[in-house]
Amino acid sequence: MAVYTEVSDAALGAFLSAYEIGGLLSYKGIAEGVENSNFFLHTTAGSYILTLYEKRVRADDLPFFIGLMEHLSARGLACPQPVRDRAGTALGRLCGRPAAIVSFLEGVSVKAPGVDHCRELGRALARLHAAGADFAMIRENSLSVAAWRPLFEQAEAQADSVSPGLAARTRDDLAVLEAGWPAGLPRGVIHADLFTDNVFFIGDALSGLIDFYFACTDAFAYDLAVCLNAWCFDADGRFDRAMAAALIAGYEAERPLEPAEVAALPILCRGAALRFMLTRLVDWLNVPPGALVKPKDPREYDRRLTFHRQARDARDYGWWG
Amino acid sequence: MAVYTEVSDAALGAFLSAYEIGGLLSYKGIAEGVENSNFFLHTTAGSYILTLYEKRVRADDLPFFIGLMEHLSARGLACPQPVRDRAGTALGRLCGRPAAIVSFLEGVSVKAPGVDHCRELGRALARLHAAGADFAMIRENSLSVAAWRPLFEQAEAQADSVSPGLAARTRDDLAVLEAGWPAGLPRGVIHADLFTDNVFFIGDALSGLIDFYFACTDAFAYDLAVCLNAWCFDADGRFDRAMAAALIAGYEAERPLEPAEVAALPILCRGAALRFMLTRLVDWLNVPPGALVKPKDPREYDRRLTFHRQARDARDYGWWG
Repeated sequence: MAVYTEVSDAALGAFLSAYEIGGLLSYKGIAEGVENSNFFLHTTAGSYILTLYEKRVRADDLPFFIGLMEHLSARGLACPQPVRDRAGTALGRLCGRPAAIVSFLEGVSVKAPGVDHCRELGRALARLHAAGADFAMIRENSLSVAAWRPLFEQAEAQADSVSPGLAARTRDDLAVLEAGWPAGLPRGVIHADLFTDNVFFIGDALSGLIDFYFACTDAFAYDLAVCLNAWCFDADGRFDRAMAAALIAGYEAERPLEPAEVAALPILCRGAALRFMLTRLVDWLNVPPGALVKPKDPREYDRRLTFHRQARDARDYGWWG
Repeated sequence: MAVYTEVSDAALGAFLSAYEIGGLLSYKGIAEGVENSNFFLHTTAGSYILTLYEKRVRADDLPFFIGLMEHLSARGLACPQPVRDRAGTALGRLCGRPAAIVSFLEGVSVKAPGVDHCRELGRALARLHAAGADFAMIRENSLSVAAWRPLFEQAEAQADSVSPGLAARTRDDLAVLEAGWPAGLPRGVIHADLFTDNVFFIGDALSGLIDFYFACTDAFAYDLAVCLNAWCFDADGRFDRAMAAALIAGYEAERPLEPAEVAALPILCRGAALRFMLTRLVDWLNVPPGALVKPKDPREYDRRLTFHRQARDARDYGWWG
């Protein structure tokens, strides 16, 4: 959480002159987003977020992300809406980096969500999947099953130093997941990173979804599996079946799961947990000197995997049919 | 520039329940202020800054800083206005730290100011001095002449590794300043740290002054000397007499300098430059591992001292009588 690039008033003024969003009143670098530099921007026309895309985001992917946010907000989803400049483009350059302005969303991230938050999240997730249905662009999920073994190979030699037996457990998980990973499930645009940081509430009502920089084209039920991992374990890593049931019920209130999706839920949850365990493990073992961002603990997801390995069917996740 | 303390939605909600500033809409950690953790706060009642005071600020000094901002804003100065809670106190505790909410000020810091900005600054500085005249509390300047030799002693052995000859130059400066430091100048509340970061403009008009956490009771003309150092040298360290003349003229339009202040201007400027050189030097030589803040270069102020040592009188600073 940091601002990687300083933006001077003069550079910002020159950048904003291409837009029709009024006169600049104030801007502040905000400590949000692990990958990019973000600024809260207040003009005579309203409040915005200015993002400078740092090197961890592939520039080739930006038209997908920007186009998706534009598509989803045009369909009424509460998500950041990219602002186009006078020339009609929503992706500019500032301080040598790709940059975009999006609408500011009110709301607060809930650190310790409850059942009601999970139900709201489920509804919003299904609405996101519906709103993305006619989005024309495709972006393959670069962090799906095919990416996990190469990630593991970067960390394998040191894995047991993080948690004894982690290397062997991961080898077993990879074998199971690569052999049984479901194909042919309903697919489309998924968020793929809908952690509590990326979901805003005002009071008990969900007010918006942010950070679409892992969004891609993949199975809808995989997105649900990411959320089950991110939202339905307590601070001690214990699975909360009531929260999971509310999340799934909220989702099904908008889009009922197909039988194949229900059947795949345990393996999708196990795969989603492995995906986050592996990226965290690689980051954990490769903290650069002087890093501004504290790496997240991979052991949280190692622990979730213990739960997923023993799950028999969707009922273990609170699904009641 | 960092957020040192994370504040959860639950902790913030409990803290805000003591205030009457409406319902929380959003908050963001902002990358501003070297010493404290700051959050932009938006509620149904307006926009605020929430500050958590970290360990570099002495808790004993907080009533002076908070009281001063309250005093100055009550007299119409555009500065952050502390918000009192229902019990009437403006200084609370959050996440184990002293914390305060102040009004949000619109405006943008100008990285490369011009003559007009300097004139506006001079006016605002004189108004600040006038508005503070009847403030009852006293806080001695803990970074004035008596503090400089102890600071230098922390850095003396390594000073020449930063800039050849710096130790000898500083010894000479200290001898001159300790012998000739003026006493008896008009004094009162000064800001003491009015760098460009701490002055906001909207367009060409000055919209506010922030960051009163070095404010103290000292000579008014010393505050002007701090500003001459901070604002009137260009990016290459060359003195800009036109900017200095505008700064002094702006100040004198509100509060004419007394002859003793005019006469003291060169030594006050030299002292102010030494003060910032020394604190930067100590910080430069003591960067903690994993520091979130990049230290500022002391050599910028070593270079300014070259100018101040050869200045003969206030005319060298653009004062025309």
